[in-house]
Amino acid sequence: MQDIRIGFGQINPVVGDFDHNLRAITNQLTLAGSLDLVVFGELALCGYPLGDLSYRTDIIEKSEQYLQKLVAESRNYPHLTIVVGHVSKAQDKSPGQSSFAIAHNSASAIRGGEVIGRYDKQILPNYDVFDDWRNFVPGNKDLVFEVKGQKIAVAICEDIWSEDSGQSKRLSSLGVDLLVVPNGSPYTRTKSTERRIAARKFQAGFALAYANLCGGQDELVFDGDSFLLDKSGKEVFRAPFAEGLITDSDEISEILDDNPKLLFEALVTGLRDYCKKNGQTKIVLGLSGGIDSALSCAIAAEAIGASNVLGVALPSRYSSDHSISDAKQLASNIGCEFRMVEIDTAHRAVESSIELSALAQENLQARLRAVILMGISNSENRLLLSTGNKSEIAVGYSTIYGDAAGGFAPIKDVFKTDVWWLAKYYNQSRGVEVIPSSSITKAPSAELRPGQLDQDTLPDYKVLDDVLRLLIEKFATVEEVVALGFDRDLVSGIDEMVRKAEWKRSQGAIGTKTTALSFGSGRRVPITTRFGKL
Amino acid sequence: MQDIRIGFGQINPVVGDFDHNLRAITNQLTLAGSLDLVVFGELALCGYPLGDLSYRTDIIEKSEQYLQKLVAESRNYPHLTIVVGHVSKAQDKSPGQSSFAIAHNSASAIRGGEVIGRYDKQILPNYDVFDDWRNFVPGNKDLVFEVKGQKIAVAICEDIWSEDSGQSKRLSSLGVDLLVVPNGSPYTRTKSTERRIAARKFQAGFALAYANLCGGQDELVFDGDSFLLDKSGKEVFRAPFAEGLITDSDEISEILDDNPKLLFEALVTGLRDYCKKNGQTKIVLGLSGGIDSALSCAIAAEAIGASNVLGVALPSRYSSDHSISDAKQLASNIGCEFRMVEIDTAHRAVESSIELSALAQENLQARLRAVILMGISNSENRLLLSTGNKSEIAVGYSTIYGDAAGGFAPIKDVFKTDVWWLAKYYNQSRGVEVIPSSSITKAPSAELRPGQLDQDTLPDYKVLDDVLRLLIEKFATVEEVVALGFDRDLVSGIDEMVRKAEWKRSQGAIGTKTTALSFGSGRRVPITTRFGKL
Repeated sequence: MQDIRIGFGQINPVVGDFDHNLRAITNQLTLAGSLDLVVFGELALCGYPLGDLSYRTDIIEKSEQYLQKLVAESRNYPHLTIVVGHVSKAQDKSPGQSSFAIAHNSASAIRGGEVIGRYDKQILPNYDVFDDWRNFVPGNKDLVFEVKGQKIAVAICEDIWSEDSGQSKRLSSLGVDLLVVPNGSPYTRTKSTERRIAARKFQAGFALAYANLCGGQDELVFDGDSFLLDKSGKEVFRAPFAEGLITDSDEISEILDDNPKLLFEALVTGLRDYCKKNGQTKIVLGLSGGIDSALSCAIAAEAIGASNVLGVALPSRYSSDHSISDAKQLASNIGCEFRMVEIDTAHRAVESSIELSALAQENLQARLRAVILMGISNSENRLLLSTGNKSEIAVGYSTIYGDAAGGFAPIKDVFKTDVWWLAKYYNQSRGVEVIPSSSITKAPSAELRPGQLDQDTLPDYKVLDDVLRLLIEKFATVEEVVALGFDRDLVSGIDEMVRKAEWKRSQGAIGTKTTALSFGSGRRVPITTRFGKL
Repeated sequence: MQDIRIGFGQINPVVGDFDHNLRAITNQLTLAGSLDLVVFGELALCGYPLGDLSYRTDIIEKSEQYLQKLVAESRNYPHLTIVVGHVSKAQDKSPGQSSFAIAHNSASAIRGGEVIGRYDKQILPNYDVFDDWRNFVPGNKDLVFEVKGQKIAVAICEDIWSEDSGQSKRLSSLGVDLLVVPNGSPYTRTKSTERRIAARKFQAGFALAYANLCGGQDELVFDGDSFLLDKSGKEVFRAPFAEGLITDSDEISEILDDNPKLLFEALVTGLRDYCKKNGQTKIVLGLSGGIDSALSCAIAAEAIGASNVLGVALPSRYSSDHSISDAKQLASNIGCEFRMVEIDTAHRAVESSIELSALAQENLQARLRAVILMGISNSENRLLLSTGNKSEIAVGYSTIYGDAAGGFAPIKDVFKTDVWWLAKYYNQSRGVEVIPSSSITKAPSAELRPGQLDQDTLPDYKVLDDVLRLLIEKFATVEEVVALGFDRDLVSGIDEMVRKAEWKRSQGAIGTKTTALSFGSGRRVPITTRFGKL
């Protein structure tokens, strides 16, 4: 492979912003120098995932139009071959597909002002967050072209994760030297390793250039990590998280699979790009003095700058002194704006207007806080963050239209035990105690009644998270979890809590996916079901 | 076909409640009398749709176990052939499917204590609300068996909507006399006609018995409507909406495609079954004096009985006198409980605690109403209804965590112009003015500021709904709508409003699907996109 010099054009596209995406692509081309081949990610030209926007005729027309602009631009780089992802018009859909389905998920090879070949994705992932078979028509033709006498083939993302498709063998028998693979591969904590396993399994005598996108798009974060494997499967070089043109002359970045640094970076990227791509420049969140809002505040400050973040303490009659002092200390350490709005007057006003049960009284406080926070959000055009973690969202320990309110939930896919882990990492990485240690060590409490603690009604978070990982991320049954040594009543109780919270989750804010199975589009279960009922 | 007597076992299954479903099935069998064949709907034994519950091993185990109970029961009816839907364990999944996918969507033919054949659904719908290709492994074998010397084949739902699969021809060449088709076919206003068109297109010399489920499941309502077509495509008999065993000795019901009676019945069924299947016996909703809450209240009363419905008027300083009097009159006409809770004290308390912009001030009122309604919901265990219609949900004319709050949104898939149509139908059908005529004729207003009217900032609802039908239900582009004669600025403005409200809709309550494309799982578009941006 020494004959061909390859670069990865890791760009951060915006769904549907063709001007932005084309500019990002052509910016990379200006850096290509002596490269022979630059590979961009999946649907780099239009953004990914498109969802049902792929059903619209104008996204195909625009994609074609901007592809032609890129083709024209390629005349400036006559010896450079460019592989770029885009949608294209399909002819026949498969039985069971939408009558609206009209697009292939394609990649074209472009050189010297011409499209030298187009490839349409053959294997359409339709699991977890992926709806490709819903949105695209599968292709059925392999593409092989030459660069400097070497045979290059193209596959797109899921194509190489499927062992049964026969494509790997077909390409091998054609004598392919290099497979280039545009990807839209979202971050999860273990994805970096999984990508290499899949790529090496798919190799059959050819080198493999794995090109990914970067940046956040709703609940997904694309974490770059493009890499080149030589024919023996050895990694030649890899790209970091960020946008840029990466070549073999760059330093090989360290692989950062499943560590708090990468996880924190993913959470920051998810929130930053949600703000940037939606024109949000300011954030507001409630600061309870607890660890979830503290970590969320740190992520927010990192994402858009501390001066654009407003933390609001909203004490009720049950708030402890340390709640307010810890919140104030955190805001001061972070350097964000801080306000305090007492909710007691409004609380008493509502209480005097209706008679409520004890639990309903508790939820009042969380909802009045949301009224005030959303008031600030609307008034000052600030994105409200919902700061719930995955453990509490799983078991329904949040008040809908209360602390669950918000446009984005930055840590919704981080279990409570991992929230502590991240907070400790964050303080360590900053070299100072940004998040007050009392926020990390205090027993979690919603403080909606005197002396309330999460652990009054929930198992220890360590145990809870272990069980939830099995129930949620493995779709394990109660029996299967019990067989691993957990107490039956404990597991049944957790399973029941998860089931009963489904209606609340169905109305939850989006937030960055970090695990193999996140709440949101990755988990689609009925609200109405008696399955698993005790 | 006079040799075989066929019945449709139209049952209303509960997802995952095998006891309930088996009982419903066996109840129908006791009525089978001299029938030769009874056909039940798709996945009648476990409920449909299962969503990702299909990934769990125990739903397959339980399905197998309850199928055996039904097989044992069938010994009591030695001459009766039973066709029933259930899940079964699959061997090999298709490339691109979830690693969790383990189930076929199957139907078994049972007679005299034996399974005489199993059929696995071959064409898996994966569009609109359907995720079958996500959740099931496709089958690839046809099933033919005999009843009284006639050749019977089985297909499941989507199988007969696909002209390209070749199955119709294959069955014809096998000399099949009758195709029995278990369906999980949800109601839409035009579905009854569409079913017959699809069925007749699929017929190739064989009669066709189309068996559907009935009842509500989250956002779907199955409207029965099972029917038998003879070999020439002539309808022999059809079933109404309700649960029951329907045979040719029943009267042929009138076909009720797209009329307000059927639409109202679907809305009532959706809400009734959501309540019943989730153990909810009481409802609360805000009554504004407007048409949306009035119609929702009528649906609620019909669904669970007027005495279980509580309507609450929540006047603010901007509420007009007729708002309160119309709300009170409606509650009195319906016969439901009525309360009035002034929000002004709480409103003033919140206003005095923070400074807000004018728009944020408006939203405060809607959110304080939600605080009170959710307080009542939590305190009295009442399901809160969100009463928004499709037009306002489309353009974002609702306050998130305010009037959008609720566990179920009964008219979310009914355009405003159709809300009026339904209200008039409802009054006519009752022979008295249950919904006050002033609620029907007054100009729509959120009453969040003095003299506010919807039409201050929205086009006339007739025009708005026409444009929305094209943009939403046809995925039409702005250009395509303009080409039909609409004003470009008008259409662009509506398109922009729809785009900006996507984040709110992503947190919306579920509600009954009534159209070909409803908000909810039927529409999956990114929140973050600049596509279509002006």
